[in-house]
Amino acid sequence: MHGEAAMASSTLMLFFFLSSFFTFSPIPCLGRYHPLDPLTPSEFTQVRTIVKKSYPSSIHNLTFQYIALDEPDKYIVKSWLSKTNSKPETLPRRALVITRLDKHSHEIVVDLSTHSVVSDKVYAGHGYPLLTMDEQTVASELPLSYKPFINSVKKRGLNLSEVVCTTFSVGWFGEEHNKRVIKILCYYIEGTPNLYMRPLEGISLVVDLDELKIAEYYDRDRIPLPKAQGTEYRLSKQKPPFGPKFNGFTTVQPDGPGFKIDGHTISWANWVFHLGFDVRAGPVISTASIYDLEKATYRQVLYRSFISELFVPYMDPTEEWYYKTFFDAGEFGFGQSAVPLEPLTDCPENAVFMDAYYASSDGTPVKITNAFCIFEQHAGSALWRHTEIAIPGELITEVRPEVNLIVRMVSTVGNYDYVLDWEFKPSGSIKFGVGLTGILEVKGAPYTHSDQIKEDAYGTLLADYTIGVYHDHFLTYYLDLDVDGEANSFVKNNLVTKRVTDHSSPRKSYWTVVSETAKTESDAKIQLGLKPADLVLINPNKKTKPGNNIGYRLIPGSISNPLLSHDDYPQIRGAFTNYNVWVTPYNKSEKWAGGQFVDQSRGDDTLATWSLRNREIENKDIVLWYTMGFHHVPCQEDFPVMPTLSSGFELRPTNFFESNPVLKAKPPRHEHLPNCTK
Amino acid sequence: MHGEAAMASSTLMLFFFLSSFFTFSPIPCLGRYHPLDPLTPSEFTQVRTIVKKSYPSSIHNLTFQYIALDEPDKYIVKSWLSKTNSKPETLPRRALVITRLDKHSHEIVVDLSTHSVVSDKVYAGHGYPLLTMDEQTVASELPLSYKPFINSVKKRGLNLSEVVCTTFSVGWFGEEHNKRVIKILCYYIEGTPNLYMRPLEGISLVVDLDELKIAEYYDRDRIPLPKAQGTEYRLSKQKPPFGPKFNGFTTVQPDGPGFKIDGHTISWANWVFHLGFDVRAGPVISTASIYDLEKATYRQVLYRSFISELFVPYMDPTEEWYYKTFFDAGEFGFGQSAVPLEPLTDCPENAVFMDAYYASSDGTPVKITNAFCIFEQHAGSALWRHTEIAIPGELITEVRPEVNLIVRMVSTVGNYDYVLDWEFKPSGSIKFGVGLTGILEVKGAPYTHSDQIKEDAYGTLLADYTIGVYHDHFLTYYLDLDVDGEANSFVKNNLVTKRVTDHSSPRKSYWTVVSETAKTESDAKIQLGLKPADLVLINPNKKTKPGNNIGYRLIPGSISNPLLSHDDYPQIRGAFTNYNVWVTPYNKSEKWAGGQFVDQSRGDDTLATWSLRNREIENKDIVLWYTMGFHHVPCQEDFPVMPTLSSGFELRPTNFFESNPVLKAKPPRHEHLPNCTK
Repeated sequence: MHGEAAMASSTLMLFFFLSSFFTFSPIPCLGRYHPLDPLTPSEFTQVRTIVKKSYPSSIHNLTFQYIALDEPDKYIVKSWLSKTNSKPETLPRRALVITRLDKHSHEIVVDLSTHSVVSDKVYAGHGYPLLTMDEQTVASELPLSYKPFINSVKKRGLNLSEVVCTTFSVGWFGEEHNKRVIKILCYYIEGTPNLYMRPLEGISLVVDLDELKIAEYYDRDRIPLPKAQGTEYRLSKQKPPFGPKFNGFTTVQPDGPGFKIDGHTISWANWVFHLGFDVRAGPVISTASIYDLEKATYRQVLYRSFISELFVPYMDPTEEWYYKTFFDAGEFGFGQSAVPLEPLTDCPENAVFMDAYYASSDGTPVKITNAFCIFEQHAGSALWRHTEIAIPGELITEVRPEVNLIVRMVSTVGNYDYVLDWEFKPSGSIKFGVGLTGILEVKGAPYTHSDQIKEDAYGTLLADYTIGVYHDHFLTYYLDLDVDGEANSFVKNNLVTKRVTDHSSPRKSYWTVVSETAKTESDAKIQLGLKPADLVLINPNKKTKPGNNIGYRLIPGSISNPLLSHDDYPQIRGAFTNYNVWVTPYNKSEKWAGGQFVDQSRGDDTLATWSLRNREIENKDIVLWYTMGFHHVPCQEDFPVMPTLSSGFELRPTNFFESNPVLKAKPPRHEHLPNCTK
Repeated sequence: MHGEAAMASSTLMLFFFLSSFFTFSPIPCLGRYHPLDPLTPSEFTQVRTIVKKSYPSSIHNLTFQYIALDEPDKYIVKSWLSKTNSKPETLPRRALVITRLDKHSHEIVVDLSTHSVVSDKVYAGHGYPLLTMDEQTVASELPLSYKPFINSVKKRGLNLSEVVCTTFSVGWFGEEHNKRVIKILCYYIEGTPNLYMRPLEGISLVVDLDELKIAEYYDRDRIPLPKAQGTEYRLSKQKPPFGPKFNGFTTVQPDGPGFKIDGHTISWANWVFHLGFDVRAGPVISTASIYDLEKATYRQVLYRSFISELFVPYMDPTEEWYYKTFFDAGEFGFGQSAVPLEPLTDCPENAVFMDAYYASSDGTPVKITNAFCIFEQHAGSALWRHTEIAIPGELITEVRPEVNLIVRMVSTVGNYDYVLDWEFKPSGSIKFGVGLTGILEVKGAPYTHSDQIKEDAYGTLLADYTIGVYHDHFLTYYLDLDVDGEANSFVKNNLVTKRVTDHSSPRKSYWTVVSETAKTESDAKIQLGLKPADLVLINPNKKTKPGNNIGYRLIPGSISNPLLSHDDYPQIRGAFTNYNVWVTPYNKSEKWAGGQFVDQSRGDDTLATWSLRNREIENKDIVLWYTMGFHHVPCQEDFPVMPTLSSGFELRPTNFFESNPVLKAKPPRHEHLPNCTK
């Protein structure tokens, strides 16, 4: 955020603003604007004005489905970054606008400096843009005044004022023609705010999104309504006994946080990076560089990274559920779904918060207060340690406590809450953490005991009439690493067993490293777990003093591969999850693994189709795509709200530095503060 | 620890002692002694006296290789635990003693109540007992007064006073006969305490451990001595520039820690468990139960768990290195290698420390100060959360911050430091964390640049003349889960793709759960990553209200499988790593995955051989064995000391509770303490 907005967002921010910008020297020149800064509220307003001028509301039916920074070309950003200690030049400032305009999707590029439309293309391909919050809100309220629906509710003896409805993307299942529609399902909130646990199973509606009218209505099965009992999760409504109990805890940073925020640029310890926001992706981390103490310079690591798509297919093929195969970024907007973080619970006491902005469907800016928190984590672990007892008469114990910097956003897409962490480690690692929590999507079913279930129920019986349906979560990260420069290669350091057959050793075997550099995209499609290998992005043009390739390696986390058939429609659309790892040549237009227009997409514009070109990727500016997956078999502990399930992966320097980059890190000063008073 | 020892160990402990024992009611009766308490210093002394009486030093050459509690039978422990609110009865108190006695290994059981030897068996099988610290110290000093060695040092123009030597187990490579020997390698510490980085490559000695005399001596290759430069890791010896810098940080718990320690029993939040210590295994967590708020009772989870073995094979088959295939628990003693934890760096400010004791080779007790730390971790994450925006006019945000209890020990086996965490979560999960740090084992080599390497160097060139040799770490955990009772079954909930072929759905596929209960041991041997499945230990005799099996599931961490040929000697000895998961029927004598006598073992007494009996494991008291592996391709960042590489796995309740067990947990009281003074 810029100017006034930044200052207003948090009084703590003001403090950082006024303090000196950076304490160590050779970092990129940082003025008030970074070329990758997200659009400001006033820029959103400008965009709106410019587009509305072309398409006056009096004549056109126009909604803004997506407005974001149209990123400047990489060379412009890099050139700006390299200009130290000089006033920032005028930078291009453009917006990409996707509108629904008289029932067509338009991709409009707006230049904010010239206040003009640069280009305006009608999109003729398959799929529709991001769903807006506004149209979903309107759509989900339509049933409440729709006679047949009101009758259905009455027939069930329920009270309309206790009904709320929400929206579900419909997917694509081979239909030749389709309209821009959304499904509506409804829930009963009598006695609980946990709507997801009380579905009015059997009732569904289809809303035409361009008309915002009900197009279809179904009232099929009459299935018992799951009870409200046990579904409440608000503390204020719980009854004793409470527990377990925790003692109080407070953290104090006598000198304040160790990081500095200048606009959207965050510097901390040996890291400097840019934190942006996109209504579709959520957090965008760019131009992350790490200071090399030995070389006395910052070195590039990550040009740009974000969650490109999140594919959540449910595993119930029946009429009421088969279409539930969601793309949470491309359909619902992972950024748009960001929720205000709660101080002291979502983030610790020492966190600093940042707001974020996106455009509503009429183009006006919407503020998400406390969309991000940034904090130093003193987890109580060792960054490195060693105790030496082998030297007679000496006992050496050297331990450096670990301090990490975490950037967090929580995206709540309907029922599920995703806690997204970017964790920077002074050792050069970046850990990408995901916590899955929130509420399950359950199906009403006529069972109170699993003994009654005679055929596949497609899930776990969690409570009376309540099935937690099996599903997956696949998060696909876009990782444009620039390892010490733009031209990189992807190397598989395969661990290969060698037999000793010549009696040269008492051993019969060992393993060694056989490196394989991926020449083209097909060499870099990897299903993890099949073959032991270290996967490294190297800079083939630079070597360490002993001659090793400078690199960063991927340390995978929980590995899950899709189990849907490759010819099944949802999997065709989600084919980017067919491999855990892909590498593509950098292409500014290839950002969204599931395609630009994901709602009702047909899988013709995905990472999987782009890669069919099998382009060269050796010694080129390349992008690593990593998919982290979860198969979720719900269990009763997930009811009525799910304890966080965490996973993640790590990018770790591997011969990037000449030696341990935190060897000469001093432990943080530790002050015993016995005299704390309230 | 008991009595005076416990009180002396920490002033903080005193505080816990005096405070009321437990705040919530229905927990097992806790007197001063728990039947699984490790031997106390005075008990060690008693054992020594009893055994020495049978074998007077004047006649016998006796060393104590292992002294530990001979665990009472499970039913005795359980019966003791179930007797609430009554004086603890007299419990059996026996010690298992393994001695080398006149060049034979004896297994002696001593009864401490009757002060008598219960049994005394000469071990006639393959392999030798745990190496003691004392014999290793003596052995490693022998070269310094050994003429040929002194000459070798002189010939190299080196200074004997800068030489230190350490010990290496020799393994077994098919020899028919062998003696109890150990290898000695030496290092040069001129200008550095980092001996491992300066091997006198080419010189090796073999010491007869029963004689404590040099048996063989080799001075082969003359390889350049790696430089001291860049190997120093002590802060006090580093020169500027220092960095990166961290701001100070302090934690305050106004009401003190939330856990209580009574002897070796720790209670915290909804957990109660016993923390023991074994000279071979290190930490032993026993009788862990969790309080079920709904059922108002403690329920059993884990009867006993510890690291049964740690297999570390190096991948250099050449003469000087081939034998390096270490078993860090069975040969070197993971407990014996525990190092005193450094307050504020190894563990956070709010940690409480506990000492541990083992017996030296002459049977006298040795104290490891601060062997354990126990602390509450407020990581700044959410235990669970949800934000609800779907209900018109309402915004609900409910977040419970996560607090965990961590029990930590660090075991430094020569060069490597293993940070071992047992993490208890109020949600019922137990996470087993491992951090690998410390110093690589490197090989001297005549290279200064990788271009000079024309054949396999079996490692990475890290610095001049310094190869970081490829190796693995396999940690095998013994997990005697008793999920809500002793009789359990192991269930593979296989996720199986189903094709929809009857046009009943627009979908072509989905996955569902096909459960398979392991009948015998062979059904439960699992290489992870080959087949998607949730692996669950269930109690087949108990079900939840909706009829689900009460269970705990294994959530694996980093999966690595051994790459050595199965017929290779080290892998025969380490065959317990051939699968990531094994399940065996509980058998008191099957504790050590690599066998009771691991040094020079031949693989005839391992988990892999026991399991060949293919015993029944359904609805029985069973033990889960889990192996977590790391393939380590060293990189320059690991030089001269390695930033921690972390991994772990989780045991998570799965239909163990009727619903989320932390639904009614209140967030810890949070006090803003602005007036902290030094």
